[in-house]
Amino acid sequence: MPNERRYVIRLGCPDRTGIVARISGFLADAGGWIVEAAYHTDPETNWFFTRQVVRADSLPFEVDELRERFGRVARELSPAADWSVTDMGVRRRVVILVSKEGHCLYDLLGRVHSGELDVDVRAVVGNHADLASITRAHGIPFHHVAFPAADPEGKAAAFAQLRQLVDASTPDAIVLARFMQVLPAELCADWTGRAINIHHSFLPSFVGARPYHQAHKRGVKLIGATSHYVTAELDQGPIIEQDVIRVGHADSVADMVRKGRDIEKVVLARGLRAHLEGRILVHGNKTVVL
Amino acid sequence: MPNERRYVIRLGCPDRTGIVARISGFLADAGGWIVEAAYHTDPETNWFFTRQVVRADSLPFEVDELRERFGRVARELSPAADWSVTDMGVRRRVVILVSKEGHCLYDLLGRVHSGELDVDVRAVVGNHADLASITRAHGIPFHHVAFPAADPEGKAAAFAQLRQLVDASTPDAIVLARFMQVLPAELCADWTGRAINIHHSFLPSFVGARPYHQAHKRGVKLIGATSHYVTAELDQGPIIEQDVIRVGHADSVADMVRKGRDIEKVVLARGLRAHLEGRILVHGNKTVVL
Amino acid sequence: MPNERRYVIRLGCPDRTGIVARISGFLADAGGWIVEAAYHTDPETNWFFTRQVVRADSLPFEVDELRERFGRVARELSPAADWSVTDMGVRRRVVILVSKEGHCLYDLLGRVHSGELDVDVRAVVGNHADLASITRAHGIPFHHVAFPAADPEGKAAAFAQLRQLVDASTPDAIVLARFMQVLPAELCADWTGRAINIHHSFLPSFVGARPYHQAHKRGVKLIGATSHYVTAELDQGPIIEQDVIRVGHADSVADMVRKGRDIEKVVLARGLRAHLEGRILVHGNKTVVL
Amino acid sequence: MPNERRYVIRLGCPDRTGIVARISGFLADAGGWIVEAAYHTDPETNWFFTRQVVRADSLPFEVDELRERFGRVARELSPAADWSVTDMGVRRRVVILVSKEGHCLYDLLGRVHSGELDVDVRAVVGNHADLASITRAHGIPFHHVAFPAADPEGKAAAFAQLRQLVDASTPDAIVLARFMQVLPAELCADWTGRAINIHHSFLPSFVGARPYHQAHKRGVKLIGATSHYVTAELDQGPIIEQDVIRVGHADSVADMVRKGRDIEKVVLARGLRAHLEGRILVHGNKTVVL
Repeated sequence: MPNERRYVIRLGCPDRTGIVARISGFLADAGGWIVEAAYHTDPETNWFFTRQVVRADSLPFEVDELRERFGRVARELSPAADWSVTDMGVRRRVVILVSKEGHCLYDLLGRVHSGELDVDVRAVVGNHADLASITRAHGIPFHHVAFPAADPEGKAAAFAQLRQLVDASTPDAIVLARFMQVLPAELCADWTGRAINIHHSFLPSFVGARPYHQAHKRGVKLIGATSHYVTAELDQGPIIEQDVIRVGHADSVADMVRKGRDIEKVVLARGLRAHLEGRILVHGNKTVVL
Repeated sequence: MPNERRYVIRLGCPDRTGIVARISGFLADAGGWIVEAAYHTDPETNWFFTRQVVRADSLPFEVDELRERFGRVARELSPAADWSVTDMGVRRRVVILVSKEGHCLYDLLGRVHSGELDVDVRAVVGNHADLASITRAHGIPFHHVAFPAADPEGKAAAFAQLRQLVDASTPDAIVLARFMQVLPAELCADWTGRAINIHHSFLPSFVGARPYHQAHKRGVKLIGATSHYVTAELDQGPIIEQDVIRVGHADSVADMVRKGRDIEKVVLARGLRAHLEGRILVHGNKTVVL
Repeated sequence: MPNERRYVIRLGCPDRTGIVARISGFLADAGGWIVEAAYHTDPETNWFFTRQVVRADSLPFEVDELRERFGRVARELSPAADWSVTDMGVRRRVVILVSKEGHCLYDLLGRVHSGELDVDVRAVVGNHADLASITRAHGIPFHHVAFPAADPEGKAAAFAQLRQLVDASTPDAIVLARFMQVLPAELCADWTGRAINIHHSFLPSFVGARPYHQAHKRGVKLIGATSHYVTAELDQGPIIEQDVIRVGHADSVADMVRKGRDIEKVVLARGLRAHLEGRILVHGNKTVVL
Repeated sequence: MPNERRYVIRLGCPDRTGIVARISGFLADAGGWIVEAAYHTDPETNWFFTRQVVRADSLPFEVDELRERFGRVARELSPAADWSVTDMGVRRRVVILVSKEGHCLYDLLGRVHSGELDVDVRAVVGNHADLASITRAHGIPFHHVAFPAADPEGKAAAFAQLRQLVDASTPDAIVLARFMQVLPAELCADWTGRAINIHHSFLPSFVGARPYHQAHKRGVKLIGATSHYVTAELDQGPIIEQDVIRVGHADSVADMVRKGRDIEKVVLARGLRAHLEGRILVHGNKTVVL
């Protein structure tokens, strides 16, 4: 039963009376067995959001037919509707970008190894080679792409190579697992809604470089981590998940870095999981997590 | 708009295909504007739960008519359906039971005073008189009922008086805000689903008397509080809400008592709020909080 | 025993070998029974901090004599030493400043009433009169000082009156319990190290006005509260204590305001308690909480 | 500087006036530079605890001489004194016991790989072979010891083999990283104060087998994890560290298992770190973490 095939239906559209009835009526008419259903209406923008999970074997047709039929319902509800139908029986493809820090990668690989995160990690790309060995020990290709700091042309070439490596996998998620390069606006645009970053602060505090140093200097009593979709504006994308951990006057920057890792990895993993399960609907610069 | 009148519809029944469609279709046909909708299916018991919030002014009939019509839908879905329709425009009535410790009462009165908790506190009953003054300063009647420890007859008479004082208010919630008397089974039965207790431990740890002493003795690193519905079995009722706070070796029992108060009061207030908003559906000995 | 009289000795000075030996030797020679002792050295500034709690009845002299003798030790350790000796047997004096929101005041009064916070609340000053009644119900004087928004002279006069009311109590702590007026630089300076504010955000996020609106707009997944010493630069003073609570896409600004109150009040109360127990040593713009 | 060599001095003894002066005087006389110092007195048992960290290069003698000299001080303070002097420049030796679940092992190996946990993992022993590959990818020997369930003799032989494998490494810590076998009383005794277990519940709730199933059945709103020293009585040893995570009615047992892993691994890692840094002083069945 945990492996039964499921479809995830998602819809965002202007709110009005009868949307739930229309969708659930459509599903009931087709015999659809709804396993999970969540709704949200944003009263400020008057926007309606839903995510429904249907057992594949309860429907008398395949996913393409469901997509076509539900598409008609969605367009009828509103020409502005933003919707998708995803077959969860198809394994998600993931590419992970790293630098030297391995805690997020170890964490993700552990989840993949145990089957908790049932995805196809197509590649890990690092701007350093430190994490090649652990990656390959899992039978996953590791690509080293150097980003020369003081060489704009070399850097542009590196980003072109990165793009090629990533796009070749047509990933459902591009995970910046403490990747220390700022993506060019063009890549941000092309990877919109698929690139997830972990920032090592409780955003919007401490945007940019060396957030733990900033936190230490300000004397905060909690430090945090934020997973968010990558957008062209640095550390300003829609926030998916956040968490914090307590620190004190006795914690040096190094202590904060160490303690912070433990929340970075879970905040990234939770964000990635929600993304892959189709739980996140982005609206403006905010997320609705259903 | 925050004061617009709303109806809360709740339903629990055996799960099957088409329930959501039936309910949302019913509401859509009547023009009902759904403000909030939440669903849950328990795969173990195959039981379906929903809570829907509808704007009163979107329906062309009054609450009694809604109750009658929805009752027909519910019975049609299942003869075993457990359902209710509540008019949130009618202020909830609350009776609070206390002993000497005032932190929960202060907290609740503060919420009532600010309007955050928009209820009618009909009475506070104390087995000590310590909290009479703060109660009366809010214009709320305070009744002192002594429970003589070593006098079974006197105690039975006290419980009879308590019952009379409480029942006279026909309360929607009976809040045991650190009331230190164990209710007789008969009262538990009569007040089923309406009596909410705060227990000063993270249940099921440290049932019964002096939980902070038990926690201190065991050397735990977190202490907790639990709000739950009162049942005849002490501290075994359906759990509504829980929270914890960190303690350490330097905390004496008195420190734990002090730190624990800060979670007791919020765990009780959150539980009471969820109860009054009709968010809690009890099933077996567990709660579904929608 | 919980009421045994205690002295709190605090010292901050440049670190060097032998400080602990010098202080503990001084106390041991006098027969001093140390109940609590905490130390911290900041490796960046090479500054040493200690707080020691001594039983008064273990010393053969009174607090003035202890102050004189310990002062000699402190000056000997460093002419730059910053130190104090406080007799905890003398009740601390507190003045509370409020506006309309009562949750922090209710919380503090509840703690005072129960004896948890064993202080002498000399006065509550409000720029609105909403909280006069609950204050006076506790036998505490309430003063209403109006701060006319568009009248600079009237406002200056109000601050002069506020200062007079506060200073007349020679308070050990001036608590800005959601007081909505920005103190003039002069008052900040005069009340340095005694004025504690609760800011309703997780600083340094959302400085200034309407932090919950800012948080809602940014779409954060946690909201916070910060208690800090007041300085001339708005919301930039040394942070004493912080905490957060989880929010989600379904939380409106009003929900955030409501949920936030529950952490504001505990973060303020914890900060005030630490201050009154002499646990906070300020160094630069940071606190060491011993 | 982070790699400067340090000695950790620990002492527990009956409390009396002058202990701190005696110890700090002894260190000051030798020129000892105290980097960290923590004290605690348990008022119930009147027991004094301290942990001091001294820079090795500040002392004019080696660790053996320090041990001999401090031993004299300790015995002089009390014949009942329990003390140790540890050279932190000597890498700690660790043996890890596992079954099939790999999240704790992955987590520990990640910390070792990054240098965060600077220990010598001498061996991993598993009663299943699932984690052999990831262990060996780190250059660490993996030993598979099968524990036949229904064969008491075979099981006894397996424990004898386990003991031999572990003892051969003379480990400073034996980490039961979700090892699913209950250690015989004899092993518990021999490994007293060195064997650390992670139990997947918030003890004392849900002792023994399948704690997440127990938690799900009781309907708790938070689940927890506990790291503790192993003693002969199952799940009753001195608690080192605990943490919790929120769950709700929608979480199945499988969801709890998954969410719980994220706290199990950090609670174990924090406990192990505190143990290796000599921060934990056991007294009766409780820990003092300095």
